[in-house]
Amino acid sequence: MADYRAPLVDMRFIREEVLDAEREWQAMPATAELSAELADAVLEEAGRLVEAELFPLNQRGDAEGCHFEGGEVRTPAGFQGAFQELAQGGWCGLGGNPDHGGQGLPKLLTQAFDEMLYASNAGFALYLALNNGAGLLLDAYADEATKARYLPRLYAGGWLGTMCLTEPHCGTDLGLIKTRAVPGSDGRYSITGSKIWITGGEHDLTENIVHLVLAKLPDAPAGAKGISLFLVPKCEVREDGSLGDVNGVVCGGLEHKMGIKGSATCVMHFDNAQGILIGEPHQGLATMFTMMNYERLSIGIQGLGLGDVAYQSAMAFARERRQSRAPGGVAEPDQAADPILVHPDVRRMALNARAWNEGGRLFAAFVARELDRAKYHPDAEVREVAEDLVALLTPVAKAFLTDRGFATTVEAQQIYGGSGYCVEWGAEQFVRDARIAMIYEGTNGIQAMDLVGRKLMRNQGAYLRRFAEQMRADLDTDSGDPTVIPFRRAAMEELARLERVSAQLMEMARTDPAAAGAAAHDYLQLLGYTAYTWMWWKAARAAFHGLTVDGTSGEAFYRAKLVVGQHFLERQLPQSEALERQIAAGPAGLMALDQSLF
Amino acid sequence: MADYRAPLVDMRFIREEVLDAEREWQAMPATAELSAELADAVLEEAGRLVEAELFPLNQRGDAEGCHFEGGEVRTPAGFQGAFQELAQGGWCGLGGNPDHGGQGLPKLLTQAFDEMLYASNAGFALYLALNNGAGLLLDAYADEATKARYLPRLYAGGWLGTMCLTEPHCGTDLGLIKTRAVPGSDGRYSITGSKIWITGGEHDLTENIVHLVLAKLPDAPAGAKGISLFLVPKCEVREDGSLGDVNGVVCGGLEHKMGIKGSATCVMHFDNAQGILIGEPHQGLATMFTMMNYERLSIGIQGLGLGDVAYQSAMAFARERRQSRAPGGVAEPDQAADPILVHPDVRRMALNARAWNEGGRLFAAFVARELDRAKYHPDAEVREVAEDLVALLTPVAKAFLTDRGFATTVEAQQIYGGSGYCVEWGAEQFVRDARIAMIYEGTNGIQAMDLVGRKLMRNQGAYLRRFAEQMRADLDTDSGDPTVIPFRRAAMEELARLERVSAQLMEMARTDPAAAGAAAHDYLQLLGYTAYTWMWWKAARAAFHGLTVDGTSGEAFYRAKLVVGQHFLERQLPQSEALERQIAAGPAGLMALDQSLF
Repeated sequence: MADYRAPLVDMRFIREEVLDAEREWQAMPATAELSAELADAVLEEAGRLVEAELFPLNQRGDAEGCHFEGGEVRTPAGFQGAFQELAQGGWCGLGGNPDHGGQGLPKLLTQAFDEMLYASNAGFALYLALNNGAGLLLDAYADEATKARYLPRLYAGGWLGTMCLTEPHCGTDLGLIKTRAVPGSDGRYSITGSKIWITGGEHDLTENIVHLVLAKLPDAPAGAKGISLFLVPKCEVREDGSLGDVNGVVCGGLEHKMGIKGSATCVMHFDNAQGILIGEPHQGLATMFTMMNYERLSIGIQGLGLGDVAYQSAMAFARERRQSRAPGGVAEPDQAADPILVHPDVRRMALNARAWNEGGRLFAAFVARELDRAKYHPDAEVREVAEDLVALLTPVAKAFLTDRGFATTVEAQQIYGGSGYCVEWGAEQFVRDARIAMIYEGTNGIQAMDLVGRKLMRNQGAYLRRFAEQMRADLDTDSGDPTVIPFRRAAMEELARLERVSAQLMEMARTDPAAAGAAAHDYLQLLGYTAYTWMWWKAARAAFHGLTVDGTSGEAFYRAKLVVGQHFLERQLPQSEALERQIAAGPAGLMALDQSLF
Repeated sequence: MADYRAPLVDMRFIREEVLDAEREWQAMPATAELSAELADAVLEEAGRLVEAELFPLNQRGDAEGCHFEGGEVRTPAGFQGAFQELAQGGWCGLGGNPDHGGQGLPKLLTQAFDEMLYASNAGFALYLALNNGAGLLLDAYADEATKARYLPRLYAGGWLGTMCLTEPHCGTDLGLIKTRAVPGSDGRYSITGSKIWITGGEHDLTENIVHLVLAKLPDAPAGAKGISLFLVPKCEVREDGSLGDVNGVVCGGLEHKMGIKGSATCVMHFDNAQGILIGEPHQGLATMFTMMNYERLSIGIQGLGLGDVAYQSAMAFARERRQSRAPGGVAEPDQAADPILVHPDVRRMALNARAWNEGGRLFAAFVARELDRAKYHPDAEVREVAEDLVALLTPVAKAFLTDRGFATTVEAQQIYGGSGYCVEWGAEQFVRDARIAMIYEGTNGIQAMDLVGRKLMRNQGAYLRRFAEQMRADLDTDSGDPTVIPFRRAAMEELARLERVSAQLMEMARTDPAAAGAAAHDYLQLLGYTAYTWMWWKAARAAFHGLTVDGTSGEAFYRAKLVVGQHFLERQLPQSEALERQIAAGPAGLMALDQSLF
């Protein structure tokens, strides 16, 4: 029993009542025409679409998977039709540049659509996610002619984009790549090499596929500083935009994976494939990071979406399933047993899911709002603050949302008992589909190293100070209502803890090169807990305001929101103290054993 | 790259250096002839067998699964041959009663073999696990004629046993079962009803299958107090032991599951199947608990075994995989990158796995030793203490070992990066195979309720006091070596915390019927942390003794043991304080929301 309804009410609450989106949009010329009503209408239609078109294909897509034959990839039955539906509705260009046919909607809105896509069909969603990132990258770095030739097709879903980074011997350490790019006489480059784990590297959804490929030029410096980025289409594109010859790109096969089986994960061979340079030579990694940062939030939202569909499905099961009696005595005497939601431990699991999902949804929206400010805000200082927050929070969004999302799918599966392990009920698919999100787009360990190394230490804590300023200033706007006091107190405590731990860690790292890596995982978790506590304070304040002043989400919604927030404080937040102690342990124990003893 | 070597050195350390097994065995007449040398020889041969016969079938068994056709079940290729090999070697009767052809080895020894079975091939191991439980139950409750007819065949692996409890509408709440048993004129019973999720309900490994079935007699009281237990063979067994007619038992199909695909999980239909009553009428649930308690430790060990094979396989990968450079600078300049074990975060994951696996292995052995004492010890007081400890620790062994085992498979998978998600490397199978262990044999939530409801509260904390006395008395034997001091201090603190939390919880439960259920999950975890801290103190003391006095496991082993134990104290144990806070939150928040709001 899998069940999914787009969480429109909570999304609207977050957008309008917590983040004051309409006012936010009106302050920025690029989004000034967007109203709350229009945003509602877009997401209602999005919800209708994913519920009707994508979710029904989810289990079938998992069972059937993608098939490889003679160099071609066949996606699961129904994927082509659903993709056409989305493409024709303009859903592939939702956040795209309006100058090239995109709809120019802010990230705060499009990330809600992303959540619905991942929740309803994660394997399918990935084709669009990669395409969005490719569009963003080309819009930022390609020349005008290239943009004009490619962007309208990507936004229209006529073609789809990929990112080609990993090679068999290297993923994390891209400085080791062997793919070569040799300049030709026509200004183009011949790309040769093999890439693995290429999402949507080959498929039957579009007539062309646009690969963004990392490769090394002949004169490249060694390591990560010698990587360049190339656009390599599956079929060459003539100046008038029509398709020319098939390029030297072939799919060598598909990976057999634990999950996301509807997503074609390809081995790709480039053999003197013709491509064009995007951005500056040897700056490919930095260029690609535009796309990777976008993808990292997107993958975080994969964790969130799967956590939500897992919760909703488990509740559909729990409403039907009756076992044993309520702890205080019989709840429904005319039935042989009570519904399992009478049991505190089932409620504990359900509220855990709620707390992570709703906190995560607000956190993702918050990061998206900062992305919008960084891109669109007329005030340079606002942009700068937003850029700093995005830099700090992107690895957290990727890793914390996926860690919590995966844990939520596992806990939701537990609610089913044995049915959760049987394929027909769908719960185990969510677990398998969520697991990859902790691994790809930079493993969560790499995210943690990015956070501690690049984002915390490299600038002596400047991003973190920015975060603390913003959080403290926000908390200072609290009007002191008793309902909200525990949330504010918790947020202040967590912020103080984060600052204390950060200072200790930077001190430790001065003398021990292993200190950053030893703390990284727990530090990212700690920042996650701190940010979520801030978010829950925001949500609690808005819920209280809604209850007492002028809410439109309904009394039951607000009361539930406060209960779920309280659950976060009582049953999840105590972990942060443990994290502080674990970080304080330092690297010595981790580095004590000789490699041969593992 | 999956890799498994039976962990003989750690098993021997636990057996001989921590638990003083040989002296233990000599104190009990039933095991007095068992020497350390013989135990070593048995486990060495067991290790050779699982490495050579079972582990090579593990990935293939997952890929192929079981097949159902015309009422018959075909196990994966190779399972029949491997099973014959085990049966002929006497490995199906290792712990069986010697009066009926079993080998009478103590649980402390056989549980080590169980770990190897689960680690090398969890899907295969289950056929033997159920059979062991069935043998134990019949040995305890069947009449002599039935024992003589069935036990030698079960111990020899000529037949295999099952347990048939769950029905489509009930699993946890067995009082609701609908299967009926009608007494016949020949003293036998006609059993009619359907059972689901029957492990090994039908297969091609043996010529007969012996089902232990819960059903209700016509005069049965309602609910759980009206359940009786019946032995129902697939083929009827004549008095001379030869096989008679096929009984009214058919397999209706197989479940499609997330993992353990080599294990046939069957729908079983009983249609006037002839069976005999085992134990007293209406006492079936209590009788079945003999088997279920056995299975619960066994399933805990499934989690442990899979955690270990996941760790070992991840290390095989890590030794080959090179990405980036060590934090302090280049470790191996003649290579393009350093092995990933130079990275503190990879070591963190590896040491987490080690700490849970090695702590869990000792804990499982400890519970097994108490099981042996309860069964074999000549001193009634020793037996009584052991019985109390087993009662308290069985739900912990099932749930905590499987929770930690699953988490370990997930963390081990993370070490592989993207390869961990690809089927060919094997890491994802361990995750899928481990997941079920948290669900079946009573979900871990049910274990937690059993712990808090039956084991803690029903006797006003008497089992817990017994545990605390034993732990404190053991800790008082500490000779005060500085190396061991932090372990002892931590153990004392955790015990005090456990006692404090237990008292508060019993007080809370006096006035709130939801208090027990609200605390159950976290309380079980807390007892798990406390018990593991005790175990790590024992291990640390033995390692120190081995280093300084007369160890045979080698200096590197002892030093690694202390490092891993320290890691447990520094990076896992801080969680226990969070658990205390979470339990203190009480049930109010969990029960606040109306069911309709989930």
